[in-house]
Parts: sequence; structure tokens; C-alpha cells
Amino acid sequence: MDAPASDAVRSTAAAHDGPIETDAVIIGAGPVGLFQVFELGLLEIKAHVIDSLGYPGGQPVELYPDKPIYDIPAIPVCTGKELTEALLKQIEPFGATFHLGQTVTGVRREDDGRFFIETSRGTRFLSKTVFIAGGVGAFEPRTLKVDGLEQFAGTQLHYRVRNPADFKGRNLVIVGGGDSALDWALHFAQEGPDKAESVILVHRRDGFQAAPASVARMRALCDQYEMQFIVGQVTGYEERAGRLTGVKVTGSDAVTRVVPLDMLLVFFGLSPKLGPIAEWGLAIERKQLVVDTEKFSTSVPGIFAVGDINTYPGKKKLILSGFHECALAAFGAAPFVFPDKKVMLQYTTTSPKLHKVLGVESPVFD
Amino acid sequence: MDAPASDAVRSTAAAHDGPIETDAVIIGAGPVGLFQVFELGLLEIKAHVIDSLGYPGGQPVELYPDKPIYDIPAIPVCTGKELTEALLKQIEPFGATFHLGQTVTGVRREDDGRFFIETSRGTRFLSKTVFIAGGVGAFEPRTLKVDGLEQFAGTQLHYRVRNPADFKGRNLVIVGGGDSALDWALHFAQEGPDKAESVILVHRRDGFQAAPASVARMRALCDQYEMQFIVGQVTGYEERAGRLTGVKVTGSDAVTRVVPLDMLLVFFGLSPKLGPIAEWGLAIERKQLVVDTEKFSTSVPGIFAVGDINTYPGKKKLILSGFHECALAAFGAAPFVFPDKKVMLQYTTTSPKLHKVLGVESPVFD
Repeated sequence: MDAPASDAVRSTAAAHDGPIETDAVIIGAGPVGLFQVFELGLLEIKAHVIDSLGYPGGQPVELYPDKPIYDIPAIPVCTGKELTEALLKQIEPFGATFHLGQTVTGVRREDDGRFFIETSRGTRFLSKTVFIAGGVGAFEPRTLKVDGLEQFAGTQLHYRVRNPADFKGRNLVIVGGGDSALDWALHFAQEGPDKAESVILVHRRDGFQAAPASVARMRALCDQYEMQFIVGQVTGYEERAGRLTGVKVTGSDAVTRVVPLDMLLVFFGLSPKLGPIAEWGLAIERKQLVVDTEKFSTSVPGIFAVGDINTYPGKKKLILSGFHECALAAFGAAPFVFPDKKVMLQYTTTSPKLHKVLGVESPVFD
Repeated sequence: MDAPASDAVRSTAAAHDGPIETDAVIIGAGPVGLFQVFELGLLEIKAHVIDSLGYPGGQPVELYPDKPIYDIPAIPVCTGKELTEALLKQIEPFGATFHLGQTVTGVRREDDGRFFIETSRGTRFLSKTVFIAGGVGAFEPRTLKVDGLEQFAGTQLHYRVRNPADFKGRNLVIVGGGDSALDWALHFAQEGPDKAESVILVHRRDGFQAAPASVARMRALCDQYEMQFIVGQVTGYEERAGRLTGVKVTGSDAVTRVVPLDMLLVFFGLSPKLGPIAEWGLAIERKQLVVDTEKFSTSVPGIFAVGDINTYPGKKKLILSGFHECALAAFGAAPFVFPDKKVMLQYTTTSPKLHKVLGVESPVFD
């Protein structure tokens, strides 16, 4: 999937020499994490944003980029992609820095009260405040559970297609029954620049979650001997000289066959993981972070939680609730960033100061 | 000001024979009142909406229809008018009935637990729930405080221009220093279809809140003897045979002059009145209704308060907070409307049931 393009996204891929010192680190670049940039920006608090995905947008972009959403206030209908693009445009004035494709591996409080945050790519921060906008957690592909198979991950076993040309002219086994499995099976089986030598689709039953049109196309290709479909589950593998040579597929008839391959692609969907957040010592109730409804602070002062990852009496996992939580969390964070300043609510419609931070002209009338 | 046109607005002007029986009455047709229609609609709760203004949109449409708002999530910029139009479009599927140009005069609980609501136009309701989305209260024009003058209200004394042609060819005194006073003074003083016989602008000081360009234009017209400007305050009036013939204007020199007129137009702005809501026995703190943050219920079960009119720890008077409050209040109201049903959160992106109530097609994939 392509990342929505925007000047708001300035990604850093590599580790820095020293930790990045900042006022706020936002964990999660979904709609709520993005709007947290906005609400902090209005209070002149600069933020860095971390996300496990390689692009902003979170769950709506990852799971249903083109499905319509109807309950964003004053937007009768939009897709997850459009929502993300609108939010990226809205936060442009605030120049947040994005650190994508990395998960937070640890957070600890320093002696000076700031938080030290480190990511899986070694990016490190020293921040006065932390905003966890982690949704249902960091998305990770569901793996194929066969003992020993993981050693081939990244070489012959893939859960994502980063570069389709890597699979050209090879013998592929593709496992799964959803849109990703079908779409890639069709992509590599059909005539085209990435055509594989052979494509075998393996799914546990003869029924699919994928779009019916894709399923029909797959069956037509099978009839034309352009690809093959096997009902069964991968239960083992064969290797030779450290290379994966085939998978064992057990069919509904309990017979196990060896299917030879060069590359194994598995599309079992994405599974959210709360991950290390669960070990930061924050109060948790049923895998959600407990917050108050005044500042949306976690049990650790200075760490806030907004969006689907938090819980409080009455909580509904709605994007619009996350937006409200961002606003109040920003005000809750202000004393940590500006201990000597009283931060007042101002309105974007009338405040010349907010017009300045938004980079828009103030109207001439008072 | 024109009302934003929309099929969502079905206005009833007159009283009905019997009270209207309904599940929900929303008091206030500002952005938050409109979005309350949406959140109730998703739960299949039909609503009637009452507003003191003659059109939906509330404060943003009444006070700053064309000024940009920057902090509605995922809408980088919109005016109050555009916000209202978008919300009216969004609530179209739910067919709410609007009762405009009337204020609620009383609310009382009936023996059967429902609420009896009556408006200034005699419209009466029997409703299972009430949502107060009253913003800062019902808007009323600030009046000119001169004993006895109010008898001319609606005939020779006006706080609003409903039909400009009524003032054509007349001798006008216009009081005020804001945009409305200046805009109407210019409108009637300049060549055009509504040109008055004479226009005298009266303002307490030689300084204006109106747009500088309007003030400059006014001064130019004065230089050309097309209109007149007097610094002073209206302290009395003269009448003959039940007709207002002039106002007494006391200048900064303490001299009082009589200014003759046919029509007196006063533009002192609008003043919000909490009005009878203050007497409904709801818990109030500094003129705001105290609510919980789980259901946004007032101290009277079944009566909810959303938007700027409510207060709770951390409350910020933001439209986006009102939107969140609507969602939780709708869930809070469901047990009053459907006492035997467990209402679950569903998502507009995936729920075929919500697609039905929204009147949109469900996608083919599951």
C-alpha cells in the first residue's frame, strides 16, 4: 500500500547519534495520533510521531483504506485514506517529525522527569510527555505456526510483498483466503512484468473471504492451468542445504503432500499486539490503558493515552471520541511542557495567536 | 441571514393539536445539536429539534457564518455555514423534525416517566429523553434600555432587518458601532433599491468594532452629506399620537439633542440567555449544567446536556468535544428508549445494520 503523500510526513529511518530531545512523543500515527499533533500544535507543543507501519493512517488505512466511514462529524462519508489525507493536511503547519516502520521497545522515566523512549530501529528520544495513540496495538502479520519455519522469514518466507519483482519467474506457494492472498496469486499467475514460473494457492477450505470477482478469476486461471489451488493446511516443510525446498500440505482427506517451492508467501492478515506497552507499569484493564476523563492521563503522570487503546467509564471505541481525548490530553500535557505558563483555551476562529501558529491570516475585523 | 437549505430541515411553525410523542427532543440546532440527531439516528432513535433561531447552525452561523474554523478534526478549514451544511447533509437519513424560531418555556416529568416540553409557540412534546444542546443559551438581541421605548418594538423599533424594503425612503436612526450597524447604515445610505430618505448613525464613541473599510466608507458618506454620524447615547424619546417621532441623544458634551426619525434600528449584538433552563431543577455550576462523563447525563436521569452548555472536570468549550459527548449521550439514552434491548456499538464502516439506517449500500465483501 502506498503512503498518502503529504509534506506533513518527514520520516526518519535511521538511528540518531544522541537521543532526540522533544516536548512530546506520540506513539501511533492513526487518525487519533495525527490529530494529537494538531491539538498539541495549537498549544505550540512540537511532537515526534512513531508508528510500526511504514505510513501514517493506522487501522483505517491498513485494514479498510477504501471502505467508506460515515460517522466522522461533518464529513458525511470518507474513506480511511481520505480521512488520513485530510488530517495530514490539517497538521501540516505543525511540522511533526515521523518515525515510521518502527515500534517502541521501551519507555522509562529519567531522573530529570523526562521520558527516555527507544524504538526497534534504535531511534531514541528524551521527551517531556508521551502520548500513546496505539489503537489496538502495533500491527504485525499473523504468522504461519510451523516449528522451524521462521528461520526462512525474510529470505524465502514472506508475510508482505515489498518488491514484486523479487518473485518473478519463481515457483510460488501462496497461503491464505483473503483479498491479499488472492490479489497476489492473481498478480503473479497472470501475464505481466512479475509473472511467476508457477503459482500454487493453498487455503484451508474451498471458500474465501476475498472479493467474489477475485475468486472467480482465480478459478478461471486454474481451469486454464495457469495456477493451481489446493485445499489444505501447511503442517511441515522440507529443506536442503539450508534452503526451503517445499511445504507439507495436509488436505481434508488427511493425506499430506509435499509441494515444492522457491518462495512461500503467507497472508493470514494482521494481528494487533499491545506489545511492550503492557510492560511499562501503566494501569491496565482488559488490555486497555486506564485513563481519567479530565486529561486522559494514564496512571503515570506525563504519559497520556488517547483513542482505542484507553478505557474509562462509558468509553466507546470511536474515532471522534479519540479526537476529543486529544484536545483534553493536550491541555493536560501543557503544564509538563510549560510549567510556568497558564495555558488558556483560545478559538481558531478568533485568536490571532492561533492564526499565527496555523500560518493563516487573521481577518481584518476584531 | 438565510438558512442553509437542506432536506433535513422540516420546520413546523404552528402548535399541534395534541403533544407530539417522540423518543428524543433536542434543544438547540447548533453543530452539536445537529450531530446529536446523527448519533441518536445510528441507534434508531428519532428526534425532534427545537431552536430559538429561525434556522439551524446555532452560534457559528449566527455569530460568524463566514469566518474560518480550523479545528474540526479532518476538516482543515471550514466556515460556520459550511459546517452546518455538512452536518445537515450527514443527518439527512434520519429525518429529524425541526421546530425553529421558538424557545422551550418549560420541561416537566410526567407520571409515566416521560418529559412534557412546551415551546414559546405552543408546540408540545411528550418525550422519553431530552438533550440540551443549548450552547451558551438562546440568542436574543441586546435591547436599548430606555423606559417606555419597548412599546414601539416591531413597528418603529427594530433589532433586526427582516425586510430591507420596509425602510426604503424613510428617515432612519441606526444605533450601534459593530458590523451590523455599519453594514445596514451603508446599505440604506448608499444608492440602491432600499435607499432611505436619511440615515443618522448614533454610537456612544467615535471608535468602531466594525470592519475598518466599512468605517472609512461611512466617514466618506458623511463627508458627502449622504448620512450623518452622531457620537452619543440614546437617553429618551419623543412621541406623538402613539407614534415614535424622535430619540433624545446625549452627547459626550452632556448636551441632549432630539433626533427626529421614522424608524429606529438598534444593533447591540446578540446576548445568550440560559432562560428557563435555569429553572428546571437541574444541577448548575456557574450557569452550566453539571454532567457526568460517562453518559453526559444531567442530575435528572433522562435529560442529557451536550456541548458548551455542560460542565465537567476538564471541560473545554470545543465543538469537537460536543461531538464526542453526543455519541456517549446517545448510548446513555438508549436504555430509556429501548428498556429491553442491549444496544451495542457498531461501526459505520462494517455494520450492515448501520448501512441500512444510513440508507447506503453494504459492500459486497464480508
